[in-house]
This record gives sequence, structure tokens and C-alpha cells, in this order.
Amino acid sequence: MKLYDTARAPNPRRVRIFLAEKGLEVPTEQIDLNKAEQKSEAFRAVNPLQQTPVLVLDDGTALAESVAICRYFEELKPEPRLFGETMLARALVEMWNRRIEQHLFSPVLLAFRHAHPAMREREKPQIAELAETSKAKAADFLHYLDGELAGHVFIAGDSFSIADITALVAVDFLKLARIDMPADVPHLSDWHARVVARPSIGA
Amino acid sequence: MKLYDTARAPNPRRVRIFLAEKGLEVPTEQIDLNKAEQKSEAFRAVNPLQQTPVLVLDDGTALAESVAICRYFEELKPEPRLFGETMLARALVEMWNRRIEQHLFSPVLLAFRHAHPAMREREKPQIAELAETSKAKAADFLHYLDGELAGHVFIAGDSFSIADITALVAVDFLKLARIDMPADVPHLSDWHARVVARPSIGA
Repeated sequence: MKLYDTARAPNPRRVRIFLAEKGLEVPTEQIDLNKAEQKSEAFRAVNPLQQTPVLVLDDGTALAESVAICRYFEELKPEPRLFGETMLARALVEMWNRRIEQHLFSPVLLAFRHAHPAMREREKPQIAELAETSKAKAADFLHYLDGELAGHVFIAGDSFSIADITALVAVDFLKLARIDMPADVPHLSDWHARVVARPSIGA
Repeated sequence: MKLYDTARAPNPRRVRIFLAEKGLEVPTEQIDLNKAEQKSEAFRAVNPLQQTPVLVLDDGTALAESVAICRYFEELKPEPRLFGETMLARALVEMWNRRIEQHLFSPVLLAFRHAHPAMREREKPQIAELAETSKAKAADFLHYLDGELAGHVFIAGDSFSIADITALVAVDFLKLARIDMPADVPHLSDWHARVVARPSIGA
């Protein structure tokens, strides 16, 4: 198999951290979005939607979407469980991963894409008002998440899961999106310190 | 258990169709978004993020997010499989469900929320430019999807799955979002006719 990866891009980083948590290594090929390599004929044959990451399986199947790739690896190597141990845990991991995507990861990326000068050529049109409302949504959610983390050690409960990976990648992207981490989020700060201490996070 | 549902809203409809496909019935309580019932103290105690659907389990756990609820029912009653039969099928269903969400379901909802007069009070600010770019994205994706459906009977392959439910709900919402179904999408039209013929679709 081969993983089409983009260094420094948030979605591929979710897969890299997931693989590191599983102790898996997969050959990779870099697709540089700043050089528009996702638009090449060769890569469009792999993913017509021109996004990374993509995992190409040995039978040639091209599997796109970060969470689809992670789920595939969860079945290939179940331990450690990153989508939940029990039926209820799996449902709660799905819920939290999606809440983080919808209310944090997506707004942070939208704030970056619609306001950062480096995205002027790639995001047309940049909509300044969308960047502003996205920043406000992300900040609101960080406060909500802080309250939730008063009650559990990790995002979806007491075990580390893919929801923590999604949240960590989003939080680490706040700076590029020019969103300030709120000062008054002690539980979120403790969670962040716990998660960045994991060796996988360097991936 | 009890399902907090909203008649006519697209996300709760995904769960209603999913349950009908499984042959399951669950007691429901309606939350009327037009009457701002999602903002009541009682409902905020169920879901602080003020969204439907929510499934409350017998132990009191509140499970939000349509796909998390569907996954819970998939484990509770595995047949018919709506998240894929095999490891590879499950990964492809996840990929397609997310592609449909990202490139069709979300843009269609954004076009509705940011342009429809009925949403003026609930979506502040409405961003006209976002509605326009969302309409264009949805239309582009419908053409791409038409090409893909030349090669398979259902969205994620040859079996009906949750990806078809997500796509059907999005397509049925095009009219409210004031997006025209393209005229030149014969495979998509055939798929739509196949899917709306299922008894579950009335749910």
C-alpha cells in the first residue's frame, strides 16, 4: 500500500498521528499543495476530488478521506483501539469526532482558508465575513469543550481516541488561522498538555 | 430509548430513513426548530449544542450526531448492513458518506441557511456570497457524482448504504436551497429513481 500525504496539512496529519499510535509504518508519497501537485493528471487519477490523504491498497483501490483511512487501519490492527472498545464507546467516539470536526476543525480551517494571504490563490473567493464568523464559532466551542473536559480525561471519555487526534490537529492549527487560544480554559489546557506529551504527536 | 426528532429537517431524516431500512421503531419527541424549542432549558440539558437528532439511551446517555446514532443501531441490529459487509466495503462506505457530506449535503444546507428568507432569524449573519459558492460547489459535485454512478448501482458500490441515505436527503433538499438539478445527469437520475422507490424514503 501507499499513502499520499501532505506534510503540514491538517487532514493528512490526522492519519500520520493515527498510524504512529498504532505503531504502523506505510510508504508515503508527498503531494505539495503549494505547487498544485493535487491538480496533476497523475494525482487526479488517484483522487478526482484533488484532496490528500489517499491510501492506495495493494489491489489498486484508492481510499480517500482521513477517517475512512483510519477506520481501515483500525480493522487491520485493532489494538490500541482508537474508535472505542465497546458499542457505546464506539458511538460516543463517533459523536465526539464529528462534534470536533463540525464545531472546531472545520471553522478553524475555514478561518485559515478565507483570511490567510497564503490562501489567496487557492480559495477563490476568500470571504472575509465567513472567516470572522468561523473564528467566533471556534472560540465559542473551545469554551464549551473546556467545560466538558472538566468531566473526562480525553475528548470522548477516559480513553484516548481519534476524537483527540482531530481536536489536537485543530488546536495546533489555531495560530495559522489567527485564532487566539482563550486564556480561561484550564481543563482544555490540561488536556492539551496530556495529548502533546504522546510520542505520536510529532508525526 | 427515545429519539429527539425534527420533522422536515435533513439530519433527523437521515436517522428516520436508516431506522425504516432496519425495520426498527423508536419512540420520538418532536423538537420544533421554527419555535426555537432546541433552545429550551430542557433540550439544552439533552444536547448543549442545540441540534437534533439525539438518541437518549435507557441509561440516560444522550447520543447526538446522526451518523453516531445510525452506527449505534447498526451494531444493535446488524442486518441489513448499511455501513458495509466487509472491511473494504466499510472503508468505502465511510469514504463515500463523507464525500457526500462534504461536497453535497453541507453545501446544500449552507445554500439554504445563507439565502432562504425563512432562515433570516436563525442564521446570523446570512452571507450571500457563501450561499452562491455553495450552490456552485453542489452543482459541480452532482456532475462528478453522475460520472461515478455510471460505474456502480449505489453510491458506495453495489449495495445500498448510509451514503445513499445522505445523498438522497441532500438531493431532496436542493429545491429548498434553490439549486436546480442539472439536466444532463442520466446516471444520477436513474440512481434517484431507484432510491426513492424504497418504502423507507417516506420516513
